[in-house]
Amino acid sequence: MIIVGASGTMGRHLTSAFEKEHEVITAASKGCAIQVDITSAESIENMYKQVGAFDALISTAGPTFVGPWKKLTDKEFRRGVEGKMMGQINLVLIGQHYINPKGSFTLITGALSHDPQKNFANASAANGAVEGFVRAAAIELENGIRINAVSPTVIENSPQYFPFFPGDIPVTMQQLEYGFRKAVFGANTGQVIKP
Amino acid sequence: MIIVGASGTMGRHLTSAFEKEHEVITAASKGCAIQVDITSAESIENMYKQVGAFDALISTAGPTFVGPWKKLTDKEFRRGVEGKMMGQINLVLIGQHYINPKGSFTLITGALSHDPQKNFANASAANGAVEGFVRAAAIELENGIRINAVSPTVIENSPQYFPFFPGDIPVTMQQLEYGFRKAVFGANTGQVIKP
Ligand SMILES: NC(=O)c1ccc[n+]([C@@H]2O[C@H](COP(=O)([O-])OP(=O)(O)OC[C@H]3O[C@@H](n4cnc5c(N)ncnc54)[C@H](OP(=O)(O)O)[C@@H]3O)[C@@H](O)[C@H]2O)c1
Ligand SMILES: NC(=O)c1ccc[n+]([C@@H]2O[C@H](COP(=O)([O-])OP(=O)(O)OC[C@H]3O[C@@H](n4cnc5c(N)ncnc54)[C@H](OP(=O)(O)O)[C@@H]3O)[C@@H](O)[C@H]2O)c1
Repeated sequence: MIIVGASGTMGRHLTSAFEKEHEVITAASKGCAIQVDITSAESIENMYKQVGAFDALISTAGPTFVGPWKKLTDKEFRRGVEGKMMGQINLVLIGQHYINPKGSFTLITGALSHDPQKNFANASAANGAVEGFVRAAAIELENGIRINAVSPTVIENSPQYFPFFPGDIPVTMQQLEYGFRKAVFGANTGQVIKP
Repeated sequence: MIIVGASGTMGRHLTSAFEKEHEVITAASKGCAIQVDITSAESIENMYKQVGAFDALISTAGPTFVGPWKKLTDKEFRRGVEGKMMGQINLVLIGQHYINPKGSFTLITGALSHDPQKNFANASAANGAVEGFVRAAAIELENGIRINAVSPTVIENSPQYFPFFPGDIPVTMQQLEYGFRKAVFGANTGQVIKP
């Protein structure tokens, strides 16, 4: 199992949970077993070449622009387009040629796709794109390969975001982990799982 | 009212329906009152400078890559990213500085965001992005400016697409027009209207 974003808040938790039962290969821009920059298709291709065949890819890497609407121009919007959106989509478009039959891709989105908050329009769009892509890819991928997204609201280990999500009950790290368990070890495909 | 995509199948119908009651300024890459290429932020800025203040913008311009999944790489994916997604998002990010108070933006998406079909993964992602953006922009736009998306399944005047949408009852041109009427002349904002 490859976890892209393994050094992040979600990625660290999922790595320690899943490495008890499975071989986990960690990846991020730095500080992980594999170095990958998901904003570069070439870098993604290199990652897969280094890893070889695998059964599951989890992505919790999804950079976006967070900040005031007034600052949101085409330029800032590209952060989420190249990062959370095309970065994750390219993990699938390229990874489908390396993954084992019956393997699975699990991407990260978030509640913002349907439940917007101020400062996060870039993430709303990127999440919506990834969710639309996941449903479409599920009917196209061959050899029993599955794809799902996990879409939490703010998570308990990210208290810095609590003020931006008034009234949202934080998702516990265990709930988040179970969302990914369902995606990776279940049989569903094309689903957006709300942990 | 500006209609971007006015020379297309949807745009022609909407132009002839709305110009009976309103001043309509038509726009597309060619053959309309205003020339604009929505894949260029500069070209969009030029359009708004030419038009000046306006009350409503309708977009039915949303190029995407349509074709076999096997051909869908990062490169082809950019057609929908630059066209239907960022093209329409930039119409709003830039147009908000030109539109009159209480004005409205109405963008085009499509059922593929939630109801995928083979060959259309690029449109599923672009539609999902635009729908997420519309919900987020609705809580950010000021001066009573509204934003909605219209999301039809295949329309009756596009029989060339019928084989790709088995079992989908085509949306009539009148239903489509009423979807846009609701978006432009109603009071809702942040909605994805299924005509
Ligand atoms: N935290 C929340 O409450 C919450 C809730 C809902 C959804 N989300 C979404 O979930 C995702 C992960 O959240 P998180 O809190 O775990 O984020 P995080 O702590 O910032 O971790 C992000 C991870 O992705 C990696 N990464 C970032 N850019 C990368 C790139 N270009 N290439 C490769 N790796 C990259 C980071 O490592 P490097 O920087 O070293 O590359 C890190 O490992 C984000 O997309 C976020 O929007 C978060
Ligand atoms: N037709 C359907 O059944 C259906 C159903 C659901 C959703 N949709 C979506 O609705 C949208 C419109 O559909 P349609 O059938 O009316 O399409 P269409 O007949 O191809 O018309 C597209 C319009 O957009 C303009 N356009 C294309 N690229 C442009 C660009 N870069 N800059 C400015 N204008 C551009 C075209 O004119 P120029 O080429 O001269 O620029 C034309 O006026 C598409 O996004 C489509 O995915 C269609």
